Amino acid sequence: MSSLRNIRLLIAYDGTQFCGWQVQKKDRTVQGVLEEALSGIHKHPVGITGAGRTDSGVHARGQVANFLSDLPGIPGEKYADALNSVLPRDVQIIESGEAAEDFHARYDAKRRTYRYYILPGGNAYPWKRGYCLSLPRQPDVRRLSEMAACFLGTHDFRAFSAAGGEQKTSERTVSSSAFYMDGAYLVYQIRGNAFLWRMVRSIVGTLLELEKSGGRIEDAAVILSSAKRENAGTTAPPQGLFLHSIEYGEDYGS
Amino acid sequence: MSSLRNIRLLIAYDGTQFCGWQVQKKDRTVQGVLEEALSGIHKHPVGITGAGRTDSGVHARGQVANFLSDLPGIPGEKYADALNSVLPRDVQIIESGEAAEDFHARYDAKRRTYRYYILPGGNAYPWKRGYCLSLPRQPDVRRLSEMAACFLGTHDFRAFSAAGGEQKTSERTVSSSAFYMDGAYLVYQIRGNAFLWRMVRSIVGTLLELEKSGGRIEDAAVILSSAKRENAGTTAPPQGLFLHSIEYGEDYGS
Repeated sequence: MSSLRNIRLLIAYDGTQFCGWQVQKKDRTVQGVLEEALSGIHKHPVGITGAGRTDSGVHARGQVANFLSDLPGIPGEKYADALNSVLPRDVQIIESGEAAEDFHARYDAKRRTYRYYILPGGNAYPWKRGYCLSLPRQPDVRRLSEMAACFLGTHDFRAFSAAGGEQKTSERTVSSSAFYMDGAYLVYQIRGNAFLWRMVRSIVGTLLELEKSGGRIEDAAVILSSAKRENAGTTAPPQGLFLHSIEYGEDYGS
Repeated sequence: MSSLRNIRLLIAYDGTQFCGWQVQKKDRTVQGVLEEALSGIHKHPVGITGAGRTDSGVHARGQVANFLSDLPGIPGEKYADALNSVLPRDVQIIESGEAAEDFHARYDAKRRTYRYYILPGGNAYPWKRGYCLSLPRQPDVRRLSEMAACFLGTHDFRAFSAAGGEQKTSERTVSSSAFYMDGAYLVYQIRGNAFLWRMVRSIVGTLLELEKSGGRIEDAAVILSSAKRENAGTTAPPQGLFLHSIEYGEDYGS
């Protein structure tokens, strides 16, 4: 039996004051803050693997990460308390647990769900502006959802990918893509096996533009099949986006 | 007729990244950011007077301020748009208008209403933590409100004042003081002619401690009438506090 245990974390964070998930030399990142906290607890450097590399300003309600721990005394479910007692206010470990030895938060993720929050019809209060896109007008939710349906299934999403992404292929499979109202918020939910860099925000920005300009429902599908980024619209701002949850198989941990 | 007009602003801000309202030499303050924006629009320094000096981390939904403007071209109600186009995301002018020549946002304020937001029974998500006090337990709302009733009327509030305040007298008149549930939030609302430095947060911190320790309803009144700060409890953290609104007489502006 190995003296190293594989610990899985379920993490929520407010991305406002982070330069994204991925560790950087100078800037404050979620991964950096977590690795610093873990290294303090372990008294030696500890690296952590996250399921999704959220951008600067993007939030997470259900990020998943894992790391190897050589601390014998702490049960897997107690790492949450140990970390929360030293983490800053904008990161929270919702739960922790011991995972299978070969569990990998990124490679084993089967489906990722993102939600983009839009506050239509007015000017959001300052304390809501960091967590939604404030939209002066009231868009047609049904038309947006009809447009969004074209992303369902397996497609080459190149038209909705920012330059500079690291992915080898731009083919992705989307199993949910719809707009709905949640209280005062208009929410876009998309679920897929994986996403290209800035894909969700490019989709949201493009659909809002299409809806505003009175484009046809089919225009979204035309842009998608063109596979050309210049045919899509602007990228919606980061603060409306939440990495909502990540699904694994049944075999991801004890 | 004077060439200077007195302009009144209704302001909302997210206090998270401000060192309070009042202008300081180095630190970022709401007054400082507003004066910078106004000075840019006027092409010369413009000072602004706020109704309430909120502390670092405290938010405002209805702060009021006024300033003298020598710009002839802009109708009073258009200053809001002009300012919002240059202000950062965490400050918002809700409305503007021309006020009476002698209107003074601070001295003319008749009543101020503060609300303190508490999220009981759990761990608030990181993006809510900057806007409430997260309380693990579920306090008894009725007992809290019964305790809070002792502050109604005119009292010497010295027991709930932080050292260092500038006020000449510590007598204040409170016309509303109660706890109530608003969705998942437990809210304390207090309305008074004016407040001592950190008075609202001292009251909230003290009442939560009394309620937790099983103190009697009368204990709050005993602390109040002792007029001794050491008899009160800790000061609740700033991020739960919102300057909700400010009332003037009927004659405060056109």
